Amino acid sequence: MVSKSPPPDIVIGRLPIYLRALEALSAEAQEITSSYELGERLGISSAQIRKDLSHFGDFGKQGTGYEISFLIEQLRQILKLKERWVVVVVGAGHVGQALVNYRGFNEHGFDIVGIFDKDPVKVGKPINGLVIRDDQELPAVLNEYRVRIAMIATPAVAAQEITDVLVNCGVKAILSYAPTMLSVPADVRVQYIDPVASLQHMTYYLNRD
Amino acid sequence: MVSKSPPPDIVIGRLPIYLRALEALSAEAQEITSSYELGERLGISSAQIRKDLSHFGDFGKQGTGYEISFLIEQLRQILKLKERWVVVVVGAGHVGQALVNYRGFNEHGFDIVGIFDKDPVKVGKPINGLVIRDDQELPAVLNEYRVRIAMIATPAVAAQEITDVLVNCGVKAILSYAPTMLSVPADVRVQYIDPVASLQHMTYYLNRD
Repeated sequence: MVSKSPPPDIVIGRLPIYLRALEALSAEAQEITSSYELGERLGISSAQIRKDLSHFGDFGKQGTGYEISFLIEQLRQILKLKERWVVVVVGAGHVGQALVNYRGFNEHGFDIVGIFDKDPVKVGKPINGLVIRDDQELPAVLNEYRVRIAMIATPAVAAQEITDVLVNCGVKAILSYAPTMLSVPADVRVQYIDPVASLQHMTYYLNRD
Repeated sequence: MVSKSPPPDIVIGRLPIYLRALEALSAEAQEITSSYELGERLGISSAQIRKDLSHFGDFGKQGTGYEISFLIEQLRQILKLKERWVVVVVGAGHVGQALVNYRGFNEHGFDIVGIFDKDPVKVGKPINGLVIRDDQELPAVLNEYRVRIAMIATPAVAAQEITDVLVNCGVKAILSYAPTMLSVPADVRVQYIDPVASLQHMTYYLNRD
């Protein structure tokens, strides 16, 4: 039974995690899994997994579990991953370079088509098959490739200006490593990656000893 | 009024975000803020912010808002950030190097005391004032500094083995960049940073055009 209300964003955020676990099982040549097994792997209750998936359809047969390859295909369809996406990276410091060198994007359907920086010392240098371009060329590349997804790896102080350029050129999804909050229109999504905030989240639970 | 039940983990996760916004306001020499202003900055409702903070005490005076420096100190105390923490990084690839080069950790009270790799080509090389050490030296360094926090930036296939070493030596909080789920005892916290999953979360909302 598919529920009528739109799935909560927190549920959407768990789908890529389920997809990754299913892909790992598939790589181990396993064909069938259960919400229990997935839950054990992910530290999420099996009831939560069944409830999350029930927002999108009825993927498991009673008592026989989920067919892994089928569920992978369904999740890839739900997450719009059946075709590849082009992505740009803005900021060619350590983080930007790490992003361009990370194979995981390509392996999961994301093609980085450009990396940009405003530092003339960096512009023109090669990273993993791309050449660092000047920020000024950003609009032309965004338009040429019809880019909808960007990753920001600039210093905090430059991030809003870059965001405005991205949004003006049609980018609808931004993954930001800059430690600052970005202001965007309602139809643009932003996700933040902030390792300091992640550490500070965990220190709450730590005891000095 | 402080509520009796322990604050939900999702609330704890928002405290570092509030702290960062307050620090930004303080850097702009502002002294007083409101849940409305914070909410505008963060894209979070003012009611949510007031509710989140009410788990920990009564920080605002009716009608006059929050005194920024006081609230910063309170949040730093709640998050156990009044003293500095030592941290290790395992994995000296692009991500590990980006972490060691990132000034944000030091600026926010985290001192990286070691970076480790098992690749003999990398071991011995300097990064930002540290020398890459062999993984074999990990237990000695963890014990010497009584390290409770670690960041994992190894390939997925190596991450569980490293996690076991960390846990055996008393690490209680792990920030993992390895694209795999880690198995840890109940008293150890893990946070994952997975840019592919973050992108896949957003593609759900994108339209092909």
